[in-house]
Amino acid sequence: MPKFDVETLRQKPPSSFVVERDVRFQDVDAAGIVFYPRVLEYFSDAFIAYLGHSGARLADAVREKRWGAPLRHAEADYFKPLRYGDRIEVALVRAHVEECELTVGWRVARCSDGIVTCVGQTVHVFVDMRDFRRCPIPDELRQAFHALPG
Amino acid sequence: MPKFDVETLRQKPPSSFVVERDVRFQDVDAAGIVFYPRVLEYFSDAFIAYLGHSGARLADAVREKRWGAPLRHAEADYFKPLRYGDRIEVALVRAHVEECELTVGWRVARCSDGIVTCVGQTVHVFVDMRDFRRCPIPDELRQAFHALPG
Amino acid sequence: MPKFDVETLRQKPPSSFVVERDVRFQDVDAAGIVFYPRVLEYFSDAFIAYLGHSGARLADAVREKRWGAPLRHAEADYFKPLRYGDRIEVALVRAHVEECELTVGWRVARCSDGIVTCVGQTVHVFVDMRDFRRCPIPDELRQAFHALPG
Amino acid sequence: MPKFDVETLRQKPPSSFVVERDVRFQDVDAAGIVFYPRVLEYFSDAFIAYLGHSGARLADAVREKRWGAPLRHAEADYFKPLRYGDRIEVALVRAHVEECELTVGWRVARCSDGIVTCVGQTVHVFVDMRDFRRCPIPDELRQAFHALPG
Repeated sequence: MPKFDVETLRQKPPSSFVVERDVRFQDVDAAGIVFYPRVLEYFSDAFIAYLGHSGARLADAVREKRWGAPLRHAEADYFKPLRYGDRIEVALVRAHVEECELTVGWRVARCSDGIVTCVGQTVHVFVDMRDFRRCPIPDELRQAFHALPG
Repeated sequence: MPKFDVETLRQKPPSSFVVERDVRFQDVDAAGIVFYPRVLEYFSDAFIAYLGHSGARLADAVREKRWGAPLRHAEADYFKPLRYGDRIEVALVRAHVEECELTVGWRVARCSDGIVTCVGQTVHVFVDMRDFRRCPIPDELRQAFHALPG
Repeated sequence: MPKFDVETLRQKPPSSFVVERDVRFQDVDAAGIVFYPRVLEYFSDAFIAYLGHSGARLADAVREKRWGAPLRHAEADYFKPLRYGDRIEVALVRAHVEECELTVGWRVARCSDGIVTCVGQTVHVFVDMRDFRRCPIPDELRQAFHALPG
Repeated sequence: MPKFDVETLRQKPPSSFVVERDVRFQDVDAAGIVFYPRVLEYFSDAFIAYLGHSGARLADAVREKRWGAPLRHAEADYFKPLRYGDRIEVALVRAHVEECELTVGWRVARCSDGIVTCVGQTVHVFVDMRDFRRCPIPDELRQAFHALPG
Protein backbone atom coordinates (compact mmCIF):
# COMPACT_ATOMS: atom_id res chain seq x y z
CA MET A 1 0.00 0.00 0.00
CA PRO A 2 2.83 2.51 0.60
CA LYS A 3 3.38 4.57 -2.55
CA PHE A 4 6.68 6.28 -1.84
CA ASP A 5 10.10 4.91 -1.12
CA VAL A 6 12.18 6.22 1.74
CA GLU A 7 14.81 7.86 -0.47
CA THR A 8 12.17 9.86 -2.34
CA LEU A 9 10.69 11.09 0.92
CA ARG A 10 14.09 12.27 2.18
CA GLN A 11 14.29 14.78 -0.69
CA LYS A 12 12.60 18.12 -0.37
CA PRO A 13 10.79 18.87 -3.63
CA PRO A 14 10.46 22.41 -5.03
CA SER A 15 6.88 22.65 -3.78
CA SER A 16 5.78 21.36 -0.42
CA PHE A 17 3.67 22.44 2.54
CA VAL A 18 5.76 23.13 5.63
CA VAL A 19 4.82 23.60 9.26
CA GLU A 20 7.51 24.63 11.74
CA ARG A 21 7.12 23.59 15.34
CA ASP A 22 9.03 22.85 18.53
CA VAL A 23 9.41 19.46 20.09
CA ARG A 24 7.40 19.92 23.27
CA PHE A 25 8.51 19.29 26.85
CA GLN A 26 5.97 16.46 27.09
CA ASP A 27 6.77 14.85 23.72
CA VAL A 28 9.76 12.91 25.00
CA ASP A 29 9.82 9.61 26.84
CA ALA A 30 11.90 8.29 29.72
CA ALA A 31 14.82 7.63 27.36
CA GLY A 32 14.97 11.38 26.72
CA ILE A 33 14.03 11.30 23.03
CA VAL A 34 10.75 11.95 21.25
CA PHE A 35 8.28 9.14 21.93
CA TYR A 36 7.82 7.66 18.47
CA PRO A 37 4.01 7.93 18.15
CA ARG A 38 4.37 11.70 18.67
CA VAL A 39 5.91 11.95 15.19
CA LEU A 40 2.65 10.58 13.77
CA GLU A 41 0.84 13.29 15.75
CA TYR A 42 3.08 15.81 13.99
CA PHE A 43 2.00 14.30 10.66
CA SER A 44 -1.65 14.51 11.71
CA ASP A 45 -1.39 18.13 12.85
CA ALA A 46 0.28 19.11 9.56
CA PHE A 47 -2.26 17.16 7.51
CA ILE A 48 -5.13 18.98 9.20
CA ALA A 49 -3.33 22.30 8.75
CA TYR A 50 -3.05 21.61 5.02
CA LEU A 51 -6.75 20.78 4.78
CA GLY A 52 -7.55 24.13 6.36
CA HIS A 53 -5.00 25.90 4.17
CA SER A 54 -6.80 24.36 1.17
CA GLY A 55 -10.19 25.69 2.23
CA ALA A 56 -11.53 22.50 3.77
CA ARG A 57 -11.57 22.83 7.56
CA LEU A 58 -11.76 19.38 9.09
CA ALA A 59 -13.50 20.82 12.16
CA ASP A 60 -16.40 22.03 10.02
CA ALA A 61 -16.57 18.81 7.99
CA VAL A 62 -16.71 16.68 11.12
CA ARG A 63 -19.19 18.91 12.97
CA GLU A 64 -21.52 19.05 9.97
CA LYS A 65 -21.13 15.28 9.51
CA ARG A 66 -19.92 15.73 5.93
CA TRP A 67 -16.65 13.84 5.62
CA GLY A 68 -13.70 12.56 7.59
CA ALA A 69 -10.35 11.11 6.55
CA PRO A 70 -9.49 8.19 8.86
CA LEU A 71 -6.29 6.26 8.38
CA ARG A 72 -5.94 2.98 6.57
CA HIS A 73 -2.18 2.85 6.91
CA ALA A 74 0.57 4.86 8.58
CA GLU A 75 4.30 4.37 8.72
CA ALA A 76 7.42 6.21 9.75
CA ASP A 77 11.16 5.71 9.49
CA TYR A 78 13.30 7.22 12.20
CA PHE A 79 16.89 8.15 11.33
CA LYS A 80 17.94 10.38 14.22
CA PRO A 81 16.35 10.88 17.62
CA LEU A 82 14.61 14.19 18.22
CA ARG A 83 15.03 15.85 21.59
CA TYR A 84 13.27 18.48 23.64
CA GLY A 85 14.32 21.90 22.41
CA ASP A 86 14.70 20.85 18.79
CA ARG A 87 12.84 23.04 16.34
CA ILE A 88 11.64 21.06 13.35
CA GLU A 89 9.93 21.50 10.05
CA VAL A 90 7.28 18.98 9.18
CA ALA A 91 6.81 18.95 5.42
CA LEU A 92 4.08 17.40 3.34
CA VAL A 93 6.29 16.47 0.39
CA ARG A 94 4.31 14.01 -1.74
CA ALA A 95 0.72 13.14 -2.48
CA HIS A 96 -0.87 10.39 -4.48
CA VAL A 97 -4.56 10.98 -5.14
CA GLU A 98 -7.13 8.30 -5.98
CA GLU A 99 -10.93 8.36 -6.08
CA CYS A 100 -11.54 7.97 -2.31
CA GLU A 101 -8.03 7.48 -1.03
CA LEU A 102 -5.03 9.70 -0.54
CA THR A 103 -1.43 8.79 0.24
CA VAL A 104 0.64 11.56 1.74
CA GLY A 105 4.43 11.59 2.12
CA TRP A 106 6.11 13.27 5.09
CA ARG A 107 9.56 14.60 5.86
CA VAL A 108 10.73 15.93 9.21
CA ALA A 109 13.96 17.91 9.41
CA ARG A 110 15.72 19.70 12.23
CA CYS A 111 15.79 23.46 11.59
CA SER A 112 19.21 23.99 13.19
CA ASP A 113 21.17 21.85 10.72
CA GLY A 114 18.67 20.68 8.10
CA ILE A 115 19.18 17.02 8.98
CA VAL A 116 16.25 14.79 8.04
CA THR A 117 15.28 12.94 11.20
CA CYS A 118 12.20 11.02 10.01
CA VAL A 119 10.09 10.38 6.96
CA GLY A 120 6.75 8.68 6.68
CA GLN A 121 3.56 8.17 4.75
CA THR A 122 -0.09 8.03 5.68
CA VAL A 123 -2.97 6.60 3.66
CA HIS A 124 -6.29 8.33 4.32
CA VAL A 125 -9.66 7.07 3.21
CA PHE A 126 -12.36 9.67 2.78
CA VAL A 127 -15.64 8.65 4.38
CA ASP A 128 -19.10 10.09 4.77
CA MET A 129 -19.28 10.95 8.47
CA ARG A 130 -22.90 9.78 8.72
CA ASP A 131 -22.12 6.12 8.03
CA PHE A 132 -18.31 5.88 7.71
CA ARG A 133 -18.69 4.65 4.09
CA ARG A 134 -16.15 5.67 1.46
CA CYS A 135 -16.87 8.83 -0.46
CA PRO A 136 -14.97 10.75 -3.15
CA ILE A 137 -12.32 13.19 -1.99
CA PRO A 138 -13.90 16.68 -1.88
CA ASP A 139 -12.99 18.69 -4.97
CA GLU A 140 -11.06 21.47 -3.25
CA LEU A 141 -8.85 18.86 -1.59
CA ARG A 142 -8.39 16.86 -4.75
CA GLN A 143 -6.98 19.99 -6.38
CA ALA A 144 -4.85 20.92 -3.40
CA PHE A 145 -3.22 17.50 -3.19
CA HIS A 146 -2.76 17.29 -6.96
CA ALA A 147 -0.67 20.46 -6.65
CA LEU A 148 1.95 18.53 -4.69
CA PRO A 149 4.49 16.21 -6.37
CA GLY A 150 3.13 12.68 -6.84
CA MET B 1 12.57 -3.12 6.22
CA PRO B 2 9.17 -4.56 7.23
CA LYS B 3 9.52 -8.32 7.73
CA PHE B 4 5.92 -9.46 7.93
CA ASP B 5 3.05 -9.19 5.51
CA VAL B 6 -0.33 -7.98 6.59
CA GLU B 7 -2.05 -11.34 6.09
CA THR B 8 0.46 -13.11 8.35
CA LEU B 9 -0.08 -10.51 11.07
CA ARG B 10 -3.87 -10.97 10.95
CA GLN B 11 -3.48 -14.59 12.06
CA LYS B 12 -3.11 -15.39 15.72
CA PRO B 13 -0.35 -17.96 16.10
CA PRO B 14 -0.44 -20.70 18.79
CA SER B 15 1.99 -18.75 20.95
CA SER B 16 1.79 -15.02 21.43
CA PHE B 17 1.97 -12.44 24.22
CA VAL B 18 -1.36 -10.77 24.84
CA VAL B 19 -2.30 -7.67 26.81
CA GLU B 20 -5.98 -6.83 27.27
CA ARG B 21 -6.95 -3.21 27.70
CA ASP B 22 -9.78 -0.74 27.24
CA VAL B 23 -9.83 2.05 24.72
CA ARG B 24 -9.67 5.06 27.00
CA PHE B 25 -12.01 8.06 27.12
CA GLN B 26 -9.15 10.28 25.95
CA ASP B 27 -7.88 7.98 23.18
CA VAL B 28 -10.44 9.11 20.63
CA ASP B 29 -10.38 12.17 18.41
CA ALA B 30 -13.05 14.61 17.29
CA ALA B 31 -14.31 12.10 14.69
CA GLY B 32 -15.21 9.79 17.58
CA ILE B 33 -12.76 7.00 16.76
CA VAL B 34 -9.36 6.13 18.20
CA PHE B 35 -6.77 8.70 17.14
CA TYR B 36 -4.42 6.64 15.01
CA PRO B 37 -1.11 7.31 16.81
CA ARG B 38 -2.73 5.89 19.99
CA VAL B 39 -2.56 2.42 18.41
CA LEU B 40 1.22 2.78 18.26
CA GLU B 41 1.14 3.70 21.96
CA TYR B 42 -0.71 0.41 22.53
CA PHE B 43 2.12 -1.38 20.69
CA SER B 44 4.70 0.43 22.82
CA ASP B 45 2.94 -0.37 26.10
CA ALA B 46 2.69 -4.06 25.15
CA PHE B 47 6.32 -4.15 23.99
CA ILE B 48 7.50 -2.78 27.33
CA ALA B 49 5.21 -5.21 29.18
CA TYR B 50 6.83 -8.09 27.28
CA LEU B 51 10.32 -6.86 28.14
CA GLY B 52 9.36 -6.86 31.82
CA HIS B 53 7.66 -10.26 31.49
CA SER B 54 10.96 -11.56 30.04
CA GLY B 55 12.99 -10.33 32.99
CA ALA B 56 14.35 -7.17 31.38
CA ARG B 57 12.62 -4.14 32.88
CA LEU B 58 13.07 -1.17 30.56
CA ALA B 59 12.79 1.22 33.52
CA ASP B 60 15.87 -0.33 35.14
CA ALA B 61 17.82 -0.49 31.87
CA VAL B 62 17.15 3.17 31.14
CA ARG B 63 17.81 4.38 34.69
CA GLU B 64 21.09 2.46 34.88
CA LYS B 65 22.02 3.72 31.41
CA ARG B 66 22.46 0.17 30.11
CA TRP B 67 20.34 -0.15 26.98
CA GLY B 68 17.31 1.28 25.22
CA ALA B 69 15.33 0.15 22.19
CA PRO B 70 14.40 3.19 20.08
CA LEU B 71 12.43 2.79 16.89
CA ARG B 72 13.85 2.69 13.41
CA HIS B 73 10.54 1.97 11.74
CA ALA B 74 6.90 1.66 12.74
CA GLU B 75 3.79 0.96 10.73
CA ALA B 76 0.17 0.09 11.23
CA ASP B 77 -2.75 -0.96 9.06
CA TYR B 78 -6.20 0.02 10.24
CA PHE B 79 -9.14 -2.17 9.14
CA LYS B 80 -11.93 -1.06 11.46
CA PRO B 81 -12.23 2.01 13.68
CA LEU B 82 -11.94 1.46 17.42
CA ARG B 83 -14.27 3.40 19.69
CA TYR B 84 -14.42 4.39 23.32
CA GLY B 85 -15.72 1.48 25.34
CA ASP B 86 -14.15 -1.19 23.13
CA ARG B 87 -12.11 -3.74 25.03
CA ILE B 88 -9.21 -4.97 22.94
CA GLU B 89 -6.41 -7.47 23.03
CA VAL B 90 -3.05 -6.29 21.81
CA ALA B 91 -0.99 -9.30 20.81
CA LEU B 92 2.70 -9.55 20.07
CA VAL B 93 2.38 -12.22 17.37
CA ARG B 94 5.70 -12.32 15.51
CA ALA B 95 9.34 -11.50 16.13
CA HIS B 96 12.37 -11.47 13.88
CA VAL B 97 15.61 -11.25 15.81
CA GLU B 98 18.92 -9.97 14.44
CA GLU B 99 22.18 -9.01 16.14
CA CYS B 100 21.15 -5.51 17.27
CA GLU B 101 17.72 -5.19 15.71
CA LEU B 102 14.34 -6.67 16.40
CA THR B 103 11.19 -6.60 14.29
CA VAL B 104 7.98 -7.22 16.18
CA GLY B 105 4.58 -7.99 14.65
CA TRP B 106 1.37 -6.73 16.25
CA ARG B 107 -2.30 -7.69 16.06
CA VAL B 108 -5.14 -5.81 17.73
CA ALA B 109 -8.55 -7.48 18.04
CA ARG B 110 -11.81 -6.43 19.65
CA CYS B 111 -12.63 -8.74 22.57
CA SER B 112 -16.40 -8.60 22.00
CA ASP B 113 -16.37 -10.24 18.57
CA GLY B 114 -12.74 -11.19 17.86
CA ILE B 115 -12.55 -8.89 14.84
CA VAL B 116 -9.00 -7.82 13.96
CA THR B 117 -9.06 -4.05 13.84
CA CYS B 118 -5.37 -3.27 13.22
CA VAL B 119 -2.03 -4.95 12.65
CA GLY B 120 1.41 -3.45 12.62
CA GLN B 121 5.12 -3.93 12.98
CA THR B 122 7.86 -2.06 14.78
CA VAL B 123 11.60 -2.27 14.21
CA HIS B 124 13.64 -1.59 17.33
CA VAL B 125 17.38 -0.98 17.43
CA PHE B 126 19.11 -1.80 20.68
CA VAL B 127 21.49 0.93 21.78
CA ASP B 128 23.85 1.56 24.63
CA MET B 129 22.13 4.32 26.62
CA ARG B 130 25.45 6.09 27.32
CA ASP B 131 26.11 7.00 23.68
CA PHE B 132 23.07 5.79 21.68
CA ARG B 133 25.33 3.41 19.67
CA ARG B 134 24.06 0.02 18.56
CA CYS B 135 24.61 -2.86 20.96
CA PRO B 136 23.65 -6.53 20.85
CA ILE B 137 20.19 -7.45 22.09
CA PRO B 138 20.50 -8.53 25.76
CA ASP B 139 20.53 -12.33 26.07
CA GLU B 140 17.34 -12.71 28.08
CA LEU B 141 15.47 -10.72 25.45
CA ARG B 142 17.04 -12.58 22.56
CA GLN B 143 15.67 -15.79 24.04
CA ALA B 144 12.28 -14.32 24.84
CA PHE B 145 11.77 -13.02 21.31
CA HIS B 146 13.10 -16.22 19.74
CA ALA B 147 10.29 -18.02 21.58
CA LEU B 148 7.74 -16.21 19.41
CA PRO B 149 6.97 -17.26 15.81
CA GLY B 150 9.33 -15.66 13.29
CA MET C 1 -15.39 25.08 45.60
CA PRO C 2 -12.85 22.53 46.87
CA LYS C 3 -14.41 20.48 49.67
CA PHE C 4 -11.41 18.69 51.14
CA ASP C 5 -8.23 19.96 52.70
CA VAL C 6 -4.87 18.59 51.70
CA GLU C 7 -4.22 16.92 55.06
CA THR C 8 -7.49 14.98 54.89
CA LEU C 9 -6.66 13.76 51.40
CA ARG C 10 -3.24 12.49 52.50
CA GLN C 11 -4.91 10.00 54.86
CA LYS C 12 -6.11 6.70 53.52
CA PRO C 13 -9.56 6.03 54.98
CA PRO C 14 -10.76 2.49 55.87
CA SER C 15 -12.81 2.33 52.68
CA SER C 16 -11.58 3.63 49.36
CA PHE C 17 -11.45 2.56 45.71
CA VAL C 18 -7.92 1.81 44.58
CA VAL C 19 -6.43 1.31 41.12
CA GLU C 20 -2.80 0.21 40.83
CA ARG C 21 -0.88 1.23 37.75
CA ASP C 22 2.61 1.89 36.43
CA VAL C 23 3.96 5.27 35.44
CA ARG C 24 4.32 4.81 31.71
CA PHE C 25 7.41 5.40 29.57
CA GLN C 26 5.60 8.28 27.83
CA ASP C 27 4.20 9.90 30.99
CA VAL C 28 7.38 11.76 31.85
CA ASP C 29 8.64 15.05 30.45
CA ALA C 30 12.08 16.30 29.47
CA ALA C 31 12.94 16.91 33.14
CA GLY C 32 12.58 13.16 33.70
CA ILE C 33 9.57 13.30 36.03
CA VAL C 34 5.88 12.73 35.42
CA PHE C 35 4.42 15.59 33.39
CA TYR C 36 1.95 17.14 35.82
CA PRO C 37 -1.24 16.94 33.74
CA ARG C 38 -0.72 13.16 33.51
CA VAL C 39 -1.65 12.91 37.20
CA LEU C 40 -5.06 14.35 36.32
CA GLU C 41 -5.34 11.68 33.62
CA TYR C 42 -4.71 9.12 36.38
CA PHE C 43 -7.59 10.68 38.35
CA SER C 44 -9.82 10.54 35.27
CA ASP C 45 -8.99 6.90 34.51
CA ALA C 46 -9.71 5.90 38.12
CA PHE C 47 -12.94 7.93 38.18
CA ILE C 48 -14.20 6.15 35.07
CA ALA C 49 -13.13 2.79 36.51
CA TYR C 50 -15.19 3.52 39.63
CA LEU C 51 -18.24 4.44 37.54
CA GLY C 52 -17.96 1.07 35.77
CA HIS C 53 -17.36 -0.73 39.07
CA SER C 54 -20.59 0.88 40.34
CA GLY C 55 -22.62 -0.39 37.41
CA ALA C 56 -22.66 2.82 35.40
CA ARG C 57 -20.38 2.46 32.39
CA LEU C 58 -19.49 5.91 31.08
CA ALA C 59 -19.00 4.47 27.57
CA ASP C 60 -22.64 3.35 27.47
CA ALA C 61 -23.96 6.58 28.98
CA VAL C 62 -22.08 8.69 26.45
CA ARG C 63 -22.94 6.50 23.45
CA GLU C 64 -26.63 6.43 24.39
CA LYS C 65 -26.53 10.19 25.01
CA ARG C 66 -27.79 9.77 28.57
CA TRP C 67 -25.35 11.56 30.84
CA GLY C 68 -21.79 12.79 31.10
CA ALA C 69 -19.76 14.17 33.99
CA PRO C 70 -17.59 17.05 32.75
CA LEU C 71 -15.32 18.91 35.10
CA ARG C 72 -16.09 22.19 36.78
CA HIS C 73 -12.90 22.23 38.82
CA ALA C 74 -9.77 20.14 39.18
CA GLU C 75 -6.74 20.55 41.37
CA ALA C 76 -3.69 18.63 42.47
CA ASP C 77 -0.89 19.05 44.98
CA TYR C 78 2.43 17.47 44.15
CA PHE C 79 4.71 16.48 47.05
CA LYS C 80 7.26 14.20 45.39
CA PRO C 81 8.09 13.70 41.72
CA LEU C 82 7.01 10.43 40.16
CA ARG C 83 9.39 8.73 37.75
CA TYR C 84 9.20 6.11 35.03
CA GLY C 85 9.20 2.69 36.63
CA ASP C 86 7.28 3.78 39.73
CA ARG C 87 4.27 1.63 40.49
CA ILE C 88 1.53 3.68 42.11
CA GLU C 89 -1.86 3.29 43.66
CA VAL C 90 -4.44 5.89 42.74
CA ALA C 91 -7.12 5.95 45.42
CA LEU C 92 -10.52 7.58 45.38
CA VAL C 93 -10.58 8.48 49.07
CA ARG C 94 -13.38 11.01 49.55
CA ALA C 95 -16.66 11.96 47.91
CA HIS C 96 -19.08 14.77 48.54
CA VAL C 97 -22.41 14.25 46.78
CA GLU C 98 -24.88 16.99 45.88
CA GLU C 99 -27.92 17.02 43.61
CA CYS C 100 -26.09 17.41 40.27
CA GLU C 101 -22.52 17.80 41.45
CA LEU C 102 -19.92 15.50 42.88
CA THR C 103 -16.57 16.33 44.48
CA VAL C 104 -14.09 13.50 44.57
CA GLY C 105 -10.86 13.37 46.60
CA TRP C 106 -7.75 11.64 45.27
CA ARG C 107 -4.58 10.24 46.80
CA VAL C 108 -1.63 8.86 44.85
CA ALA C 109 0.99 6.80 46.67
CA ARG C 110 4.09 4.95 45.52
CA CYS C 111 3.65 1.20 46.05
CA SER C 112 7.32 0.58 46.89
CA ASP C 113 7.38 2.69 50.06
CA GLY C 114 3.83 3.94 50.59
CA ILE C 115 4.86 7.58 50.23
CA VAL C 116 2.02 9.89 49.19
CA THR C 117 3.25 11.73 46.12
CA CYS C 118 0.14 13.72 45.17
CA VAL C 119 -3.40 14.43 46.28
CA GLY C 120 -6.17 16.20 44.45
CA GLN C 121 -9.85 16.81 44.02
CA THR C 122 -12.15 17.01 41.04
CA VAL C 123 -15.62 18.53 40.86
CA HIS C 124 -17.87 16.87 38.30
CA VAL C 125 -21.19 18.21 37.09
CA PHE C 126 -23.63 15.67 35.75
CA VAL C 127 -25.20 16.74 32.48
CA ASP C 128 -27.72 15.37 30.04
CA MET C 129 -25.61 14.49 27.00
CA ARG C 130 -28.28 15.72 24.59
CA ASP C 131 -28.01 19.38 25.62
CA PHE C 132 -25.19 19.55 28.23
CA ARG C 133 -27.68 20.80 30.86
CA ARG C 134 -27.34 19.76 34.49
CA CYS C 135 -29.15 16.62 35.53
CA PRO C 136 -29.36 14.71 38.81
CA ILE C 137 -26.61 12.20 39.51
CA PRO C 138 -27.86 8.74 38.42
CA ASP C 139 -29.10 6.72 41.41
CA GLU C 140 -26.58 3.90 41.21
CA LEU C 141 -23.77 6.45 41.28
CA ARG C 142 -25.30 8.46 44.08
CA GLN C 143 -25.26 5.31 46.20
CA ALA C 144 -21.77 4.31 45.14
CA PHE C 145 -20.28 7.69 46.01
CA HIS C 146 -22.24 7.91 49.28
CA ALA C 147 -20.47 4.69 50.28
CA LEU C 148 -17.15 6.56 50.38
CA PRO C 149 -16.14 8.83 53.29
CA GLY C 150 -17.43 12.39 52.85
CA MET D 1 -1.58 27.89 48.47
CA PRO D 2 -3.60 29.40 45.60
CA LYS D 3 -2.95 33.15 45.45
CA PHE D 4 -5.64 34.36 43.09
CA ASP D 5 -9.39 34.15 43.25
CA VAL D 6 -11.42 33.02 40.30
CA GLU D 7 -13.00 36.41 39.64
CA THR D 8 -9.59 38.10 39.43
CA LEU D 9 -8.40 35.51 36.93
CA ARG D 10 -11.45 36.05 34.71
CA GLN D 11 -10.37 39.65 34.10
CA LYS D 12 -7.82 40.41 31.44
CA PRO D 13 -5.33 42.92 32.85
CA PRO D 14 -3.71 45.64 30.70
CA SER D 15 -0.50 43.61 30.47
CA SER D 16 -0.45 39.89 29.96
CA PHE D 17 1.35 37.28 27.85
CA VAL D 18 -0.93 35.69 25.30
CA VAL D 19 -0.54 32.58 23.13
CA GLU D 20 -3.19 31.83 20.51
CA ARG D 21 -3.76 28.23 19.54
CA ASP D 22 -6.32 25.83 18.15
CA VAL D 23 -7.98 23.06 20.08
CA ARG D 24 -6.51 20.04 18.37
CA PHE D 25 -8.35 17.11 16.81
CA GLN D 26 -6.87 14.82 19.47
CA ASP D 27 -7.52 17.11 22.45
CA VAL D 28 -11.13 16.06 22.86
CA ASP D 29 -12.52 13.01 24.63
CA ALA D 30 -15.35 10.64 23.86
CA ALA D 31 -17.88 13.18 25.15
CA GLY D 32 -16.77 15.50 22.33
CA ILE D 33 -15.28 18.24 24.50
CA VAL D 34 -11.71 19.03 25.48
CA PHE D 35 -10.37 16.41 27.89
CA TYR D 36 -9.80 18.45 31.03
CA PRO D 37 -6.09 17.68 31.63
CA ARG D 38 -5.37 19.10 28.16
CA VAL D 39 -6.13 22.58 29.52
CA LEU D 40 -3.26 22.14 31.96
CA GLU D 41 -1.08 21.20 28.98
CA TYR D 42 -2.09 24.51 27.43
CA PHE D 43 -0.97 26.26 30.63
CA SER D 44 2.33 24.36 30.53
CA ASP D 45 2.99 25.18 26.88
CA ALA D 46 2.30 28.87 27.50
CA PHE D 47 4.43 28.91 30.64
CA ILE D 48 7.39 27.46 28.73
CA ALA D 49 6.79 29.93 25.90
CA TYR D 50 6.96 32.80 28.40
CA LEU D 51 10.22 31.48 29.86
CA GLY D 52 11.72 31.47 26.36
CA HIS D 53 10.24 34.90 25.61
CA SER D 54 11.99 36.14 28.78
CA GLY D 55 15.38 34.85 27.71
CA ALA D 56 15.39 31.67 29.79
CA ARG D 57 14.89 28.66 27.51
CA LEU D 58 13.74 25.71 29.60
CA ALA D 59 15.28 23.31 27.08
CA ASP D 60 18.74 24.76 27.72
CA ALA D 61 18.26 24.91 31.50
CA VAL D 62 17.20 21.27 31.64
CA ARG D 63 19.87 20.01 29.23
CA GLU D 64 22.62 21.87 31.11
CA LYS D 65 21.19 20.62 34.42
CA ARG D 66 20.82 24.16 35.73
CA TRP D 67 17.22 24.55 36.88
CA GLY D 68 13.74 23.21 36.41
CA ALA D 69 10.33 24.42 37.59
CA PRO D 70 8.23 21.41 38.66
CA LEU D 71 4.74 21.89 39.96
CA ARG D 72 3.72 21.98 43.57
CA HIS D 73 0.09 22.79 42.85
CA ALA D 74 -2.14 23.16 39.82
CA GLU D 75 -5.81 23.96 39.51
CA ALA D 76 -8.34 24.90 36.89
CA ASP D 77 -11.96 26.03 36.80
CA TYR D 78 -13.97 25.12 33.74
CA PHE D 79 -16.91 27.38 32.82
CA LYS D 80 -17.71 26.33 29.25
CA PRO D 81 -16.66 23.25 27.31
CA LEU D 82 -14.12 23.76 24.54
CA ARG D 83 -14.60 21.85 21.31
CA TYR D 84 -12.50 20.84 18.34
CA GLY D 85 -12.23 23.77 15.97
CA ASP D 86 -12.28 26.41 18.69
CA ARG D 87 -9.47 28.89 18.48
CA ILE D 88 -8.42 30.08 21.92
CA GLU D 89 -6.11 32.51 23.58
CA VAL D 90 -4.23 31.26 26.61
CA ALA D 91 -3.15 34.23 28.69
CA LEU D 92 -0.71 34.42 31.54
CA VAL D 93 -2.55 37.11 33.50
CA ARG D 94 -1.07 37.13 37.01
CA ALA D 95 2.17 36.24 38.74
CA HIS D 96 3.15 36.15 42.37
CA VAL D 97 6.90 35.84 42.86
CA GLU D 98 8.62 34.50 45.97
CA GLU D 99 12.22 33.46 46.63
CA CYS D 100 12.02 29.97 45.08
CA GLU D 101 8.36 29.76 44.21
CA LEU D 102 6.14 31.28 41.57
CA THR D 103 2.37 31.31 41.30
CA VAL D 104 1.01 31.98 37.84
CA GLY D 105 -2.58 32.85 36.96
CA TRP D 106 -4.17 31.64 33.71
CA ARG D 107 -7.13 32.69 31.62
CA VAL D 108 -8.40 30.87 28.54
CA ALA D 109 -10.87 32.61 26.21
CA ARG D 110 -12.45 31.63 22.93
CA CYS D 111 -11.26 33.93 20.14
CA SER D 112 -14.58 33.90 18.26
CA ASP D 113 -16.63 35.55 21.02
CA GLY D 114 -14.20 36.42 23.79
CA ILE D 115 -15.94 34.13 26.28
CA VAL D 116 -13.71 33.00 29.14
CA THR D 117 -13.92 29.22 29.18
CA CYS D 118 -11.41 28.38 31.93
CA VAL D 119 -9.09 29.97 34.44
CA GLY D 120 -6.44 28.40 36.58
CA GLN D 121 -3.28 28.79 38.56
CA THR D 122 -0.06 26.85 38.82
CA VAL D 123 2.55 26.97 41.58
CA HIS D 124 6.06 26.24 40.37
CA VAL D 125 9.05 25.54 42.59
CA PHE D 126 12.43 26.28 41.12
CA VAL D 127 14.92 23.49 41.69
CA ASP D 128 18.53 22.77 40.90
CA MET D 129 18.32 20.04 38.26
CA ARG D 130 21.32 18.18 39.72
CA ASP D 131 19.59 17.30 42.99
CA PHE D 132 16.00 18.60 42.71
CA ARG D 133 16.60 20.93 45.70
CA ARG D 134 14.99 24.35 45.81
CA CYS D 135 16.96 27.20 44.31
CA PRO D 136 16.22 30.91 43.81
CA ILE D 137 14.29 31.88 40.71
CA PRO D 138 16.81 32.93 38.02
CA ASP D 139 17.10 36.72 37.82
CA GLU D 140 15.84 37.16 34.26
CA LEU D 141 12.71 35.24 35.17
CA ARG D 142 12.18 37.08 38.44
CA GLN D 143 12.11 40.31 36.43
CA ALA D 144 9.90 38.91 33.72
CA PHE D 145 7.29 37.66 36.17
CA HIS D 146 7.45 40.83 38.26
CA ALA D 147 6.41 42.68 35.09
CA LEU D 148 3.02 40.94 35.22
CA PRO D 149 0.22 42.04 37.59
CA GLY D 150 0.51 40.38 41.01
